[in-house]
Amino acid sequence: MTSTSPTRLTGPAALTADAERAYDLDRQHVFHSWSAQETLDPMVVTRAEGSYLWDGQGNRLLDFSSQLVYTNLGHQHPRIVAAIQEQAASLCTIAPSYANGTRSEAARLIASHTPGDLDRVFFTNGGADANEHAIRMARLHTGKHKVLSTYRSYHGGTQLAINVTGDPRRWPSDNGSTGTVHFFGPFLYRSPFAATTEEEECQRALAHLEQVVALEGASTIAAIILESIPGTAGIMMPPPGYLQGVRELCDRNGILLIADEVMAGFGRAGRWFAVEHGGVVPDLLTFAKGVNSGYVPLGGVAISEKVYRTFAQRAYPGGLTYSGHPLACAAAVATIETMEDEGIVERVDALGREVIEPELRALASRHPWIGEVRGTGAFWALELVRDRESREPLAPYGGSSPEMAAIVSGCMRRGLIPFANFNRIHVVPPLTITAEEAKEGLAILDEALAEAHGPA
Amino acid sequence: MTSTSPTRLTGPAALTADAERAYDLDRQHVFHSWSAQETLDPMVVTRAEGSYLWDGQGNRLLDFSSQLVYTNLGHQHPRIVAAIQEQAASLCTIAPSYANGTRSEAARLIASHTPGDLDRVFFTNGGADANEHAIRMARLHTGKHKVLSTYRSYHGGTQLAINVTGDPRRWPSDNGSTGTVHFFGPFLYRSPFAATTEEEECQRALAHLEQVVALEGASTIAAIILESIPGTAGIMMPPPGYLQGVRELCDRNGILLIADEVMAGFGRAGRWFAVEHGGVVPDLLTFAKGVNSGYVPLGGVAISEKVYRTFAQRAYPGGLTYSGHPLACAAAVATIETMEDEGIVERVDALGREVIEPELRALASRHPWIGEVRGTGAFWALELVRDRESREPLAPYGGSSPEMAAIVSGCMRRGLIPFANFNRIHVVPPLTITAEEAKEGLAILDEALAEAHGPA
Repeated sequence: MTSTSPTRLTGPAALTADAERAYDLDRQHVFHSWSAQETLDPMVVTRAEGSYLWDGQGNRLLDFSSQLVYTNLGHQHPRIVAAIQEQAASLCTIAPSYANGTRSEAARLIASHTPGDLDRVFFTNGGADANEHAIRMARLHTGKHKVLSTYRSYHGGTQLAINVTGDPRRWPSDNGSTGTVHFFGPFLYRSPFAATTEEEECQRALAHLEQVVALEGASTIAAIILESIPGTAGIMMPPPGYLQGVRELCDRNGILLIADEVMAGFGRAGRWFAVEHGGVVPDLLTFAKGVNSGYVPLGGVAISEKVYRTFAQRAYPGGLTYSGHPLACAAAVATIETMEDEGIVERVDALGREVIEPELRALASRHPWIGEVRGTGAFWALELVRDRESREPLAPYGGSSPEMAAIVSGCMRRGLIPFANFNRIHVVPPLTITAEEAKEGLAILDEALAEAHGPA
Repeated sequence: MTSTSPTRLTGPAALTADAERAYDLDRQHVFHSWSAQETLDPMVVTRAEGSYLWDGQGNRLLDFSSQLVYTNLGHQHPRIVAAIQEQAASLCTIAPSYANGTRSEAARLIASHTPGDLDRVFFTNGGADANEHAIRMARLHTGKHKVLSTYRSYHGGTQLAINVTGDPRRWPSDNGSTGTVHFFGPFLYRSPFAATTEEEECQRALAHLEQVVALEGASTIAAIILESIPGTAGIMMPPPGYLQGVRELCDRNGILLIADEVMAGFGRAGRWFAVEHGGVVPDLLTFAKGVNSGYVPLGGVAISEKVYRTFAQRAYPGGLTYSGHPLACAAAVATIETMEDEGIVERVDALGREVIEPELRALASRHPWIGEVRGTGAFWALELVRDRESREPLAPYGGSSPEMAAIVSGCMRRGLIPFANFNRIHVVPPLTITAEEAKEGLAILDEALAEAHGPA
């Protein structure tokens, strides 16, 4: 809606007949997310492999977006494809009330990587319903109603999930989901607390949250839901001590901590789960995307023992037809086993430190628009500003600008799909990207930034 | 939560080693829908084909539930399996902003069967988010907020969808989703209007709705959402004229009509969509389940031209990562093409009239517990009562009873999986069931009813 999306490349080559038909039928029948339908000119994708995809004109593009930050093992990973095909041959689907070996194994593997005692898994179809169910569990476990979440966050598109969301996508639906309250998380570069150091930002953000809890009333608050590292909102790494501080505040006030790891989880942040950076164990942890690289829709909630106990003898009042879908679970099993066998998490951590971060810092030294570089693993943001002193964003909050559009189209013309949001470019390639591919993409970004900016 | 679920058969045969592991890991790690976790004893399913599935002890069971009324083309239909495998080999996933041939073709095929001008398709992951998005579209299109829905309905498990739901699954989450109002739909057997004929029930139900609209205020009501034929709530066929009456009332009051066809659509009711029985075209129609027999999670909203126009130049503020997932769309294409090529809809209509209905009426003549037989196509309910005069349900609303449990276990022991809800048994087999298989299942139901009732 407010991001800059990849659109069809203009160029001499015509679409193939198949691509032309795909495009025409799309324009006639497909209603697209977050968009004014008749302003769209979508790129046709006919093929994808690893870190690349091909459009309907035969152009190859390097995917620095991992689509919507979910194809963590790249496109068409042979092991996941084979797992889906084998599961399809054996048992595509079975209702949630049954037990099934693939579902059981996916739950076991997930639980083997989640921190602490988050050993029970409720499967959903994606991240939005995972967050909806986590909040329901927290409300019923605590007997309290309010949910606190941060401004500059995204938690999903259904009514409750969008109402805890703290970005402009919430506004059109912010019409009566009671009990959702927003507070400010730490973000030193645009500090809501006039802080000048990470330590100060951390202390003031915790003091602010303490006040919000006191003034909303701890006795009314079921949960605080946080992206362990906020994703689309800007990849703001929480300062050291922040997540521990929130954990401690929750414990002191009988509030559950829900970590939304839909985007940051499953290796994206160079850890199995991003909460590991903060060393805390939430009471509920939600996931989707990376759990199976999005090859089949899947999300879920990992549940701590104490929340599980609440629903041991009392029914949990929630469910969905495709909970624990075998095909989706088979893709999760293959994804997690691949991550284990190929040491993906360790690899991504190193790639971030040794390749992406130094290259981005070098870019920042050359391009005055780059106000800040931040991130970890394969999860990086460039905060673009008109002026490093004033920090005026290169596009307004919730909107775009000619400069941002020029950077995106400059990347696209050179064969790179960037992830853009407002005044930011995120560098969020597949976790399987090679150092060479990463450098190839960053070189394109370098050129596109130079071209869009023009001579200094 | 309140239905009677299939549980593990007790018997001499032990679980196979694989099934034992599936069971043990399930009990350790899988959190189940709508259930108290430690009261469960789930059946392990190791294999399924057509109308049958096999448990972990090697027992073959005939599936009269279509799982949760979604495996419309049965288990492991070779054409859908092949389509999934081929799509997996070519392109598992691509983000919603792109155009893709499989997604386009699925949208075209769906639009070719939806009534009237419902020619634009917004894809979701299932029925709950389809209803959430349909309501959002209606709210933004009308600029009004309230949504009216019936008691005795089910619209999904997320916060907004569960709050428009009119069954006991709503109660634990009915805590602040503003703007959801319930009214009574027609249900002659337990008439909320003291009616004695279908015609009277229809007139009084429409007069009731007219009053609810007047007293809630037409200027506040965005939409009326109705299951075209209520499903889990009891398969109450709307009397002739009811849906037309609601359509007319909506038009007169600037209210949109949303038809929830998640369960009743795609052939289940002997029509492509159940609204065809009433001859009306809703403004929005939601679907899931039968669209691809649930082989891959998929749902969606079919959108009329006038609602589409609202979002032609203005962004629709909703979306999800897996909207229009290629693997799910490939399964939809194969499902719909199979339904067309094999004349499934016509076949089901005939099966209902020629086999299921006469057999169920014969059962009713033998079993005094059967208070009413109602339905169409492969979508039938037996309303079970202690006494045909008083119509006292065989289990209380929202609960179960020893008698209902005995019927279910009697079916299971004889190799039939029934669909039970409160005091009802639904006969909702795959649309591909043969007349012989249907008779085999109905004969088991006959025995189970006789055994549970005992000598008259």
